[in-house]
Amino acid sequence: MTSTYSLPQSRVPDPRDAPTLRWAILGPGWIATRFVESLHRNTSQQVVAVGSRTAARAEQFALAHGIERAHGTYDAVFTDDAVDIVYVATPHTEHRAHALAAIAAGKHVLVEKPLAVDAAGAAEIADAAGAAGVFAGEAMWTRFLPKFDVIEQVLSSGVLGPIHTVLADHGEFFTRDHRIYDPTLAGGPLLDLGTYVASFAYSVLGRPDTVYATRRPATEDIDGQISAVLSGPDGHAVLNTTILTDTPTTATVCGRDGTLTIPGPFFMPGSFAVTMRGGGTVEYDEQPGLQVDGLHYAAVDAARTIDAGRRESSIHPLSDAVATLDIIDRIRASISA
Amino acid sequence: MTSTYSLPQSRVPDPRDAPTLRWAILGPGWIATRFVESLHRNTSQQVVAVGSRTAARAEQFALAHGIERAHGTYDAVFTDDAVDIVYVATPHTEHRAHALAAIAAGKHVLVEKPLAVDAAGAAEIADAAGAAGVFAGEAMWTRFLPKFDVIEQVLSSGVLGPIHTVLADHGEFFTRDHRIYDPTLAGGPLLDLGTYVASFAYSVLGRPDTVYATRRPATEDIDGQISAVLSGPDGHAVLNTTILTDTPTTATVCGRDGTLTIPGPFFMPGSFAVTMRGGGTVEYDEQPGLQVDGLHYAAVDAARTIDAGRRESSIHPLSDAVATLDIIDRIRASISA
Repeated sequence: MTSTYSLPQSRVPDPRDAPTLRWAILGPGWIATRFVESLHRNTSQQVVAVGSRTAARAEQFALAHGIERAHGTYDAVFTDDAVDIVYVATPHTEHRAHALAAIAAGKHVLVEKPLAVDAAGAAEIADAAGAAGVFAGEAMWTRFLPKFDVIEQVLSSGVLGPIHTVLADHGEFFTRDHRIYDPTLAGGPLLDLGTYVASFAYSVLGRPDTVYATRRPATEDIDGQISAVLSGPDGHAVLNTTILTDTPTTATVCGRDGTLTIPGPFFMPGSFAVTMRGGGTVEYDEQPGLQVDGLHYAAVDAARTIDAGRRESSIHPLSDAVATLDIIDRIRASISA
Repeated sequence: MTSTYSLPQSRVPDPRDAPTLRWAILGPGWIATRFVESLHRNTSQQVVAVGSRTAARAEQFALAHGIERAHGTYDAVFTDDAVDIVYVATPHTEHRAHALAAIAAGKHVLVEKPLAVDAAGAAEIADAAGAAGVFAGEAMWTRFLPKFDVIEQVLSSGVLGPIHTVLADHGEFFTRDHRIYDPTLAGGPLLDLGTYVASFAYSVLGRPDTVYATRRPATEDIDGQISAVLSGPDGHAVLNTTILTDTPTTATVCGRDGTLTIPGPFFMPGSFAVTMRGGGTVEYDEQPGLQVDGLHYAAVDAARTIDAGRRESSIHPLSDAVATLDIIDRIRASISA
């Protein structure tokens, strides 16, 4: 059955039209590689510098991606006059310190998710950026995808009726040698895969009244799986995240009048569907994409925001990052209760 | 990618070959109609009697389905010598009393799910049937479907590796005039839609160590939605059931080495898929079906069981029904804690 409902258009502008910032990459790892590739392939942003604790790694990354300036210390990045904005892609555990140092040096910052390991750390970054008058943002790239702009419009239009349920999971099997098994790097699923489901739940339902979570260990030091129920005035979020198994990694929003389903992996570019009760299904048709097809949207949003004289994204403000980390804090508290 | 894994065959025998029992229907409502239609269409079982509190309803049902004997009291059903087995399809709140009365009269019983409103009631039925030497079973029809026999074989083969996660939901929007909104009939999702997800979780993971649930009211007297996390030695079950919205009603079992996904509605006849990590997907290909295409499997299993001189189904023994109701009891306890 075809639906009489039709989806709104994405309002995300062409990423190539965004004003150009001069970017420095802090921490040349897996996600930084994808971020630079995504910028180079899809935008006119300039990556002018890279910094690592070891000069050799910085130089190797610079060479691989045609970046002019390779710094063997983070400080050299923060004091580099050629740099407008620092993309912090160091391990989660260092996001806060590196973001604060960049802000103190007067740089704008875009910080890989999670913004910090807890809400207090995230709030510190927000406060410091506010006081320094620089831009700070969390690179929760999912929120900036054209697909999610359409989803946001569907949700805020009220067409689904009162929302009662968010179902979301994000599970991926990792081998023991992966850094996600490293307790010194805040290993386990929660700050990594779990950030996506917590952020999604928050974006739909807002702050929950109650948070209950249970954990399954992977090793003595590391969570393997966390399942949680969030309950708030507007509904339940039923969440699961795991590094022990591949899961469907779908997300669903169920309202009285309709259901929005995002096939896995829900946080990537791709399609979704809205099924109206008794009124058929309409699909947002988008080729599934990987990180390289989507990481740049958060970056060009930063560029536009800064160019407009604003210091925070209107799509994913710092308060959203803080609130998501507050959920994560409460999940941790529930687990250890 | 195609998988090198291939699915086992269903071992469920042709329903028409089962020995014939003479059935009486107790409670001529929605599910009884589908049950009789399913028997008549797919088996050689004989429906010889129907009983209702009102003679007119019994007669109307008998006429509609070509049933010889219409009884205006339940007792007349229990004492009818032409009846081998009573299918108890009265409201949940009466299952226990009607099953016990039928057993006391020496009849075999197949009771609509849930077997009783709590584990104690279910255990009473099991004990009474054991003492009387008659068959008793819960018509958890899903468990008897050819699809679920294949799923059972996949799970018990160990091909998925250690199971860590069960995700299942069952949500359906009901209007206020539906009996599911009637508090005197144990309304709300838990004993109805919720029975399917609890039973599925139990069948995969066994008895949970901890059960946490949260509720969202539909009215002052009725739950609208219940979300739960079950944690046991073998993994987490993340469950949701609601009468407030339509949900995908999918079920997923995630193991270290593979994931089994059952598209919605998972509890009906239809397809499912097994995706092996790094090894492609293999699909069990079955036309989606409705109640009429599946309710008879539990009935013919009862017929075969009784004919073999046994008093309990080996596919869905009474202990499984009691254990599922124990989960439901613990969900209720968690909600009201």
